Amino acid sequence: MAKHKVIFDTDPGIDDAMALLYLHHHPDIELLGITTVFGNARIETTTRNALYLKQAWDIAAPVAKGAGVTLDPARVDREPPTIVHGDNGLGNIAMPEVIDLPLDPRPAHRFLIDTIKAHPGEIELVAVGRMTNLALALREAPEIAGLVKQVVIMGGGITANGNVTPVAEANIHGDPEAADAVMTAPWKVVLIGLDVTAKTIMTRAQLADIGRAGGNRAQLVVDVSQYYLGFYETVVADGMMVHDSCAAAYVTNPELFTTQSGAIRVVCGGIADGQTIQKPDGRGFPPNPWDGFPSQLAAVGIESEKVLKLIHDVIAQGA
Amino acid sequence: MAKHKVIFDTDPGIDDAMALLYLHHHPDIELLGITTVFGNARIETTTRNALYLKQAWDIAAPVAKGAGVTLDPARVDREPPTIVHGDNGLGNIAMPEVIDLPLDPRPAHRFLIDTIKAHPGEIELVAVGRMTNLALALREAPEIAGLVKQVVIMGGGITANGNVTPVAEANIHGDPEAADAVMTAPWKVVLIGLDVTAKTIMTRAQLADIGRAGGNRAQLVVDVSQYYLGFYETVVADGMMVHDSCAAAYVTNPELFTTQSGAIRVVCGGIADGQTIQKPDGRGFPPNPWDGFPSQLAAVGIESEKVLKLIHDVIAQGA
Ligand SMILES: [Ca+2]
Ligand SMILES: [Ca+2]
Repeated sequence: MAKHKVIFDTDPGIDDAMALLYLHHHPDIELLGITTVFGNARIETTTRNALYLKQAWDIAAPVAKGAGVTLDPARVDREPPTIVHGDNGLGNIAMPEVIDLPLDPRPAHRFLIDTIKAHPGEIELVAVGRMTNLALALREAPEIAGLVKQVVIMGGGITANGNVTPVAEANIHGDPEAADAVMTAPWKVVLIGLDVTAKTIMTRAQLADIGRAGGNRAQLVVDVSQYYLGFYETVVADGMMVHDSCAAAYVTNPELFTTQSGAIRVVCGGIADGQTIQKPDGRGFPPNPWDGFPSQLAAVGIESEKVLKLIHDVIAQGA
Repeated sequence: MAKHKVIFDTDPGIDDAMALLYLHHHPDIELLGITTVFGNARIETTTRNALYLKQAWDIAAPVAKGAGVTLDPARVDREPPTIVHGDNGLGNIAMPEVIDLPLDPRPAHRFLIDTIKAHPGEIELVAVGRMTNLALALREAPEIAGLVKQVVIMGGGITANGNVTPVAEANIHGDPEAADAVMTAPWKVVLIGLDVTAKTIMTRAQLADIGRAGGNRAQLVVDVSQYYLGFYETVVADGMMVHDSCAAAYVTNPELFTTQSGAIRVVCGGIADGQTIQKPDGRGFPPNPWDGFPSQLAAVGIESEKVLKLIHDVIAQGA
């Protein structure tokens, strides 16, 4: 079987780091690039963190620096969620200010366009931050939509509560206009949202197991995750949600998910700002804003224990 | 036990008719008034229908005519849902154009204010149409919020899909600004939404049972419901959702429902227009538009078969 050719669009970010190691270690994945976006920290920080992880884990794929502001420049800038990911975006572990590795010379959206065009029909985008880079790429080169194999997104939620408002999830809420552009483009989107990620909770014991089995690389995941575990003490009984790794796991093991099909739109503005709303296929409504947009998949079920074991096994086997 | 003093705010409407007969026949309910609102049909039609049912069933309570347009006059007028309730709002049964009964001289919102003030702390509003009359009453006399026992609303939904858009239910979608005013007022609201009403489906056999057991009055419910059953053939396997009767049943039998507490707001504008969003108590979020508003109850569970039996028994016992 040909390997999955993946570009990882990310805002590392603690759970991003685990997902990156999953993609790096999985034998069926060829990681073609890492594109950074603001979100869990400012763009300079998430880009530095991507370079840090590339260096620490000896990842061949280039890092291209992406967007630092929302698609709509009129959006008010918000402070990064340091309570979740720490001041440095990686749980406040000790880290150099600057990593001595070159960036790809292109901005992330141009890197996306070029790489997609170089591998028509083959690229799978795994997007686990805000959708800004993808939306910029679509704006500059709408034809890429027909050239991408699929876009697997960690973000949003269909029936679950949100995590930054009662109905909005952080990645989508962070740039709703970009997310709406991505959901409504004529490519295949799979939304891995809070419906499934919020119930995929890695316990402290499971994380420690990964650290023991996975060697130094996995130990770095354990180290950066300590801060995140502290945040999650107020949310779950034991452990942490491994949001971004769920999207990575979908690429290789979609059979562990159940999905629902229907056009997906994102609320832009008002109290539901950043909510993802799917009109399930086959449900009839009067004419509405979902009409004419492609059906996308949203994950509504997950075999969480199997996904957690998969993450363990993949990270460990690359040790 | 003192009887429940109920004012029924309604847009009859087929399921409204069944709920009205429930309230009229229940021995623990004292029906103090019927206020009409536009929705299932235009205000002239729903008011005529209320008078028709009052006459047919010999109901003592006065009928006060209410709002015919949304609270915000800038809202675009929509055509009534004749596909659900028929051109005459009562399933196209043969009916006089005009009913020879007097209306209460006051508009509905003034009737609400006066009656609430005459029975401080005692009135339970059962509101099963758009929230326009209640919002107008609150605007004219905000002090009534402290004088009402509870407001039981058929409308909205917290986790369920909508019925007029993927996230909006018809009563709330029909006047979102009014609904937001009602949900956020300092009185006790219980939202009986699609989470529970969409799973409370009276089969054709159960409806026929009510007709047999309940005499002529119940037979009228059966007659008007035939058209509604036709609409529901495209929605459910057998039968029809008895939305408004669920709200009536909550008044007398709240133990058949489970509820969730939290501030409720209504989306006004955008693709989620008319969605009801609850911030569950105890869930922490950054500062948000739910802050500072009272916790309300939303029904998230129902013992549907017991509610259906209750409706049968109450309607039958008044025969
Ligand atoms: Ca992320
Ligand atoms: Ca109604």
